Amino acid sequence: MNQNTLIVITNDDGITAPGIKTLIEVVKKITDRIVVVAPDKPQSGMGHAITINAMIRIKEFDMDGITAYSCSGTPVDCVKVATTKIAEGKPDLIVSGINHGSNSSINVIYSGTMSAALEGSIEGIPSIGFSLDDTRIDANFEPTKKYVEQIIRYTLDHHLEGNCCLNVNFPAIGPDLIQGIKVCRQANAMWKETFDERHDPSGNAYYWLTGKFVNHEEEATDTDEWALKNNYISVVPVQYDVTAYPVLNQIKLLEE
Amino acid sequence: MNQNTLIVITNDDGITAPGIKTLIEVVKKITDRIVVVAPDKPQSGMGHAITINAMIRIKEFDMDGITAYSCSGTPVDCVKVATTKIAEGKPDLIVSGINHGSNSSINVIYSGTMSAALEGSIEGIPSIGFSLDDTRIDANFEPTKKYVEQIIRYTLDHHLEGNCCLNVNFPAIGPDLIQGIKVCRQANAMWKETFDERHDPSGNAYYWLTGKFVNHEEEATDTDEWALKNNYISVVPVQYDVTAYPVLNQIKLLEE
Repeated sequence: MNQNTLIVITNDDGITAPGIKTLIEVVKKITDRIVVVAPDKPQSGMGHAITINAMIRIKEFDMDGITAYSCSGTPVDCVKVATTKIAEGKPDLIVSGINHGSNSSINVIYSGTMSAALEGSIEGIPSIGFSLDDTRIDANFEPTKKYVEQIIRYTLDHHLEGNCCLNVNFPAIGPDLIQGIKVCRQANAMWKETFDERHDPSGNAYYWLTGKFVNHEEEATDTDEWALKNNYISVVPVQYDVTAYPVLNQIKLLEE
Repeated sequence: MNQNTLIVITNDDGITAPGIKTLIEVVKKITDRIVVVAPDKPQSGMGHAITINAMIRIKEFDMDGITAYSCSGTPVDCVKVATTKIAEGKPDLIVSGINHGSNSSINVIYSGTMSAALEGSIEGIPSIGFSLDDTRIDANFEPTKKYVEQIIRYTLDHHLEGNCCLNVNFPAIGPDLIQGIKVCRQANAMWKETFDERHDPSGNAYYWLTGKFVNHEEEATDTDEWALKNNYISVVPVQYDVTAYPVLNQIKLLEE
């Protein structure tokens, strides 16, 4: 490992979240050149949002001996700030997380954590999003550490083809129960939503989004959902080319 | 065309934008069963963001004879509201736009317009996002109308394989100059950003995101960027499975 390795760290739960502290701890074992830029408040579910109609504030402060930056924007904004304003030179790696809550299957699309990683890959920088299947603030990130380090070192040592990034999800179980790492595809799943209706003191309705997760392919054994359910750490390579290639020929008729 | 056809209309520029009015005009020629739910304010660049840590307000009002709903959430929230709370039965189609500004190539990832369409496809509903390569409020949507109708009718008549949605972009040119429709893939491109630094009256710095578009494959003739530049209407089928399949085998080593 080259001690010149430059690693950017971000997340979507906000710069004070325990998950990002765990990530910083691990990255410190790999390099001294660390840039931390993370949202100044929770930004879960922000997807690939960017701030184009408002200004951004950036604040510098000390975080366990590292100069860190909080940013008023989205997770994707944080990556843009880190690579454009803060990092000296092109980063060797961008890591995002560790998210409080899993980002397997369709959640990769809604996730700020994974959108930050995807933004890295769009900029041609190897990137990894880490998430733990436990949304609690006091989730136990301890068992993830050795695997986070292993996956970071692997990614630094191997060129990831096709400008992809990695979507890594940990089951929330003790270290003895973890069955290892499973490379898999994104499960075809969705959220079946309802809107919970309430009324404010003036009698006006307002709504909370709430939903039930539905996996359309419970039986498939090559998906990230299966891996997590069976105590594996799931790793899905993720790309930003969303063209549905098999459909190109089917809709050629539109040209006539 | 079945007069029972149920079509949901949304956008990301907000419910008062001229683009969505054009879309409503066209859809009215196809069916009477229309559900309009759109953001109560501009939501450009919101990507696939959803509102999970705040409540949502929905307001009903008359819009050129149609009952429309403005929603305080994101474009993706609007689709969820439309399909869950408003529509009676499963919609036959979701259309989003017409966006003021193109959403070709990498912009599909940042775009609220396209994320709304993608959300439709996640819910198993054929969906189309329409965008015009002109960000001005007084952009001329007139030349798009006949093609919008053609593409909507095609999508209603043909089953789109693989739960994909369509990303349709119009060049901002007169009707005589349009060369027709081109089915293409997403160009590999990115925004090379800078942050424009300003200072508030108290002397504190703030930043505006600003950027330059970079197409990594100017020469390729099968991309949406090429099509738009050459006066074609680009149509890219878009999928929500972002697994980088060619990379699955390459990273198998991680399992060891």
